Amino acid sequence: MSKVTDFLACPTPKAWLKSVHENIDLLLIDHAHCEKKAASMAIKLMFQYPEHVKLMHCMSRLAREELRHFEQVLVVLNTRNVTFKHQKPSRYAGEMHRMARTSKSDRLVDLLIIGAFIEARSCERFSKLVPLLNNDLAQFYGRLHEAEERHFENYLDFAGSIAGSSIESRVNEFAAKEADLIQTPDTIFRFHSGPLQ
Amino acid sequence: MSKVTDFLACPTPKAWLKSVHENIDLLLIDHAHCEKKAASMAIKLMFQYPEHVKLMHCMSRLAREELRHFEQVLVVLNTRNVTFKHQKPSRYAGEMHRMARTSKSDRLVDLLIIGAFIEARSCERFSKLVPLLNNDLAQFYGRLHEAEERHFENYLDFAGSIAGSSIESRVNEFAAKEADLIQTPDTIFRFHSGPLQ
Repeated sequence: MSKVTDFLACPTPKAWLKSVHENIDLLLIDHAHCEKKAASMAIKLMFQYPEHVKLMHCMSRLAREELRHFEQVLVVLNTRNVTFKHQKPSRYAGEMHRMARTSKSDRLVDLLIIGAFIEARSCERFSKLVPLLNNDLAQFYGRLHEAEERHFENYLDFAGSIAGSSIESRVNEFAAKEADLIQTPDTIFRFHSGPLQ
Repeated sequence: MSKVTDFLACPTPKAWLKSVHENIDLLLIDHAHCEKKAASMAIKLMFQYPEHVKLMHCMSRLAREELRHFEQVLVVLNTRNVTFKHQKPSRYAGEMHRMARTSKSDRLVDLLIIGAFIEARSCERFSKLVPLLNNDLAQFYGRLHEAEERHFENYLDFAGSIAGSSIESRVNEFAAKEADLIQTPDTIFRFHSGPLQ
């Protein structure tokens, strides 16, 4: 976990955590969408970069794991009698993706760094959420926290090996943007949102 | 298997089977792409129809299974020292998708029927390929044949239950198109192509 907190430029603001209790069902629906989007992002990389066979193997396994989590969140929603539905996504992933460079190999490195940040933030948020949740949900989120930490390392390792040179300065640029999105007031409450305005 | 052969309007032509031996590596690469595309199609349905929770559960499990098959085909390619790479896809899936209606609920029924045909044809081709392959590959394809038969039934059952009325005439329209694509001479040899010109 220290790798994750070292990687992120800021912790989750207390103001975000204070909104959790009154928005728990909304958060669970958004969480299900996030797992689905994580699987979809991994599969997109498999389509766009078929020449990176090791990456494809890793992304395929990662997508399978995210889909299993998606199914598990659907079960949690069903147990709570909450209907899964479309929800407007937070600004977070879209704003990060807008920073990705456009040339094919630079873009891959940036997408992998963005993947690392999304997984790292998810990991950090799961660990902050665990003490706030009831037993069953806390246990479930505790297990997910471990998976996200592993995915964060996968993304970051591939970003470094594919770049072939130091990615430190690019990581720092994304870290600053990510911290800004996490800390500045947001219009909607989501898994990766800033605190509510 | 009889359900599959009853569903399809024609068997795989002998002329297609005759081209298998000299194109086996090309076929394996295309097969890997097909597994990846099947996972991607299932995930697209999960994004487009979040209100169908049972369908999403099923599509998520199906996508995980297709991704595992994709990884298994990559291992087969690696064992044979064949490099996975981009390949122009056959006309098959694209032509079938062009027939799908555009209104949201009709489109879902059509996409599920198309999914059923792709899985049914894959199942039929796997069973025809088994006697032509070496032991390891024959065993692998024998296992996949069972999975595709299950997926075919999943797709067809959902198409029927979501349509809420008989889908027989629509199935017959797709069956005629599918048989045409399978029987008429094709310009490239692929897993779902017609026989070579």
